[in-house]
Parts: sequence; C-alpha cells; structure tokens
Amino acid sequence: MTGRFISFEGIDGSGKSTQAKRLAAKLGAEAILTREPGGSRGAEDIRQLVLVGDPDRWSPETEILLFTAARRDHFEKTIAPALETGKTVICDRFADSTRVYQGATRGDLRDMVDSLHRLMIGREPDLTILIDMDPKVALARGLARETSEQRFEDMGLSFQEKLRAGFLSLAEEAPERWLVVDVDGDPDQVAQRVCAQL
Amino acid sequence: MTGRFISFEGIDGSGKSTQAKRLAAKLGAEAILTREPGGSRGAEDIRQLVLVGDPDRWSPETEILLFTAARRDHFEKTIAPALETGKTVICDRFADSTRVYQGATRGDLRDMVDSLHRLMIGREPDLTILIDMDPKVALARGLARETSEQRFEDMGLSFQEKLRAGFLSLAEEAPERWLVVDVDGDPDQVAQRVCAQL
Repeated sequence: MTGRFISFEGIDGSGKSTQAKRLAAKLGAEAILTREPGGSRGAEDIRQLVLVGDPDRWSPETEILLFTAARRDHFEKTIAPALETGKTVICDRFADSTRVYQGATRGDLRDMVDSLHRLMIGREPDLTILIDMDPKVALARGLARETSEQRFEDMGLSFQEKLRAGFLSLAEEAPERWLVVDVDGDPDQVAQRVCAQL
Repeated sequence: MTGRFISFEGIDGSGKSTQAKRLAAKLGAEAILTREPGGSRGAEDIRQLVLVGDPDRWSPETEILLFTAARRDHFEKTIAPALETGKTVICDRFADSTRVYQGATRGDLRDMVDSLHRLMIGREPDLTILIDMDPKVALARGLARETSEQRFEDMGLSFQEKLRAGFLSLAEEAPERWLVVDVDGDPDQVAQRVCAQL
C-alpha cells in the first residue's frame, strides 16, 4: 500500500501554508502534514545553516546542494515512511520551490536543479497544488509577517512576479501533476475549491 | 595564468597530511595548503554538521550531498581564487576521498558520487599523490591519535584494507593523474621521493 504525495506551492503570502494545514485537518489521521525547508531533524539543522548569517554566504550552487541534502533527509525520514504505511503526505513546498527560487531567480540554474533532483531524490509529488495569487496582494500579506527568516521584504514586487511566473510555467510543463487554484483572498472559498478539485 | 592543483590521498595514519605540509613548506609563497573536509568557513560549518551527533544520523546519500556542498564552497572560496592567481594549491584530501569513503565503503554509491562530482564540482586535481601504506602500520598510527573526529578506531583493519584497495583502484583507473608513493615509515625519505617524482 502506498499513500498519496501532495505538495502545495506558491509565492510567500499566498496562503498556501494555511491551505496545506486545512487539507491535512480535513483528512485527519490518514494524512501527515510536513514542510520544506525542514521537515525532519537533520533537514531542520541544514535549514538553520542555510538561513543563518550573511545572505551572500553561500553561492546559489552550494545553496542548491544544501537544500537537496535537506530534502533527501526529509524524504527518507519523514515522507517515504509515511507513504509506505499508506498515509497521504501533504508537504508545504517541495522541489518545485527550489526550481523556482534557486533555479529561476538566482541565475539560470534550472537544469542543474533538475539534474540534481533526478540523481539524488528521484521522486515528484503525485499532485502539486499551486495556490496562485496576485503578487501585489501576497506582498502586502508577506510584509505584515514578522519572521526573521522572511528575506522577502528586500525583494519587492518584481521578484514576486518572477516567482509567480516561474510556478505557472512549471504547472504548464506538467499539467498532469499540477492543479492551479486561483485565490481571491477568502481562505474558506479556496479550501472548498481545493477539496472540490481533489 | 593558472596554478597547479595537487591533492594528497591515503588512508588515515598514512602520513599524507604530513607530506602535504612538507610539500607546501618547500614551495613556500607560491603555494597554499588546504584540506578537506573543510578548507573554507562555510565548508568547516558543514563539516561540523556532518561530524557532530550520532554517526548514523545521516544516510550515505545525504552525507555525500553535504560533503559535496562543503567541497563546492571550498572550491569556490579557497581553491579557485588561488589557482587564478597562479598559486599551486595543495589539498589534503579531495573528491577521491569521497569516492573511496562514501562511494566504496558505505554501499555501492560510486556512480552517484561521480555523477554528483561532474555536475556540481566538475574539476579534478592536476595531480593526486597517493601516500600508500600497509594498513597494519597505518592503523597503529591512527589509534595513537586522540581526536574525537577520528571514527576510525571503530572500523578496524579490514575497513582500512578496503580503503587502501579503493585508492589503489582509483589510481589504476587514471594513472595519468595519480602518483603512488610507497611508504616505508620514514617521513624524510617519503618527502624526498615526493619531490623527486614531482
């Protein structure tokens, strides 16, 4: 018996984490909710290493390697064991975030990210739900958060638009895996739409 | 102008670090001496993450990713800039150690290590000097050291013999890059032999 692997993607402030939580709550004991970067003890330690210190401390290539190491640990320790017992795994961000954030926005490294993923992870989610939102609205939400990890304040609207375009482009490349859910701002309606489309 | 990139490899206790230091001292200001794992600030931080805690904390695959991330940082921050100014870089261990330690001894992961190296590092040393020693002698020397990082006490003679065979096999695969120097135990004579053969 193998469970279903569902990831949520979207720009910061889109509400994807809220939607991932809601879906997990709805599914109850048959699902586990996890997230990236992080999701296992080792992966959290790697996440700390990436996020602490000067933002230019790591090159895009080294950052991609560290995120892939974290993902490998997360997959081995958290995702794969749950899938093997037949649980649905709901993951807030997975490899598509690396494709968009490191691959598309920190130089043209998409091919490197894809090759590394094939070599060291080798598995895509069965379904990826893109919570798609106007970056102007998402930026306003993101700015309201007070988390030190959020590097997003420095990045502005044009960066968020790039990210959104990156996610939409991935969804177009593999429509059989992606479900794009437009967001009008009301989480209840979005959650209903996610459930309806599942 | 591009400098020469020389690595030293060998089992623990073979005296390769001593030989790397001696060669660096002999070359003086035209050379820099560095080492792996580590060799740059970021790489040292990754090294700590790998070595601290339960030895089974990381799977072989995750460990390979972390070592490759450390190597990428080391190469970008320390090795490449020195080569670009025409310096000789002497490196105590490089990718061949990963090939032997993680690739050959923790499961049959040599292909993974090679693919990852080609993808994320892409450069081999111009010359690799294998300080080749009878594992019985090397083990006795290794046991005498008191460093907590040395996991080698637990591993025993048959493990050291596997490692030695791994290094010799790499040297056979690429004889144009490798120089095998037999060790009879006297560091002065070995140093003379290294210099003579350079």
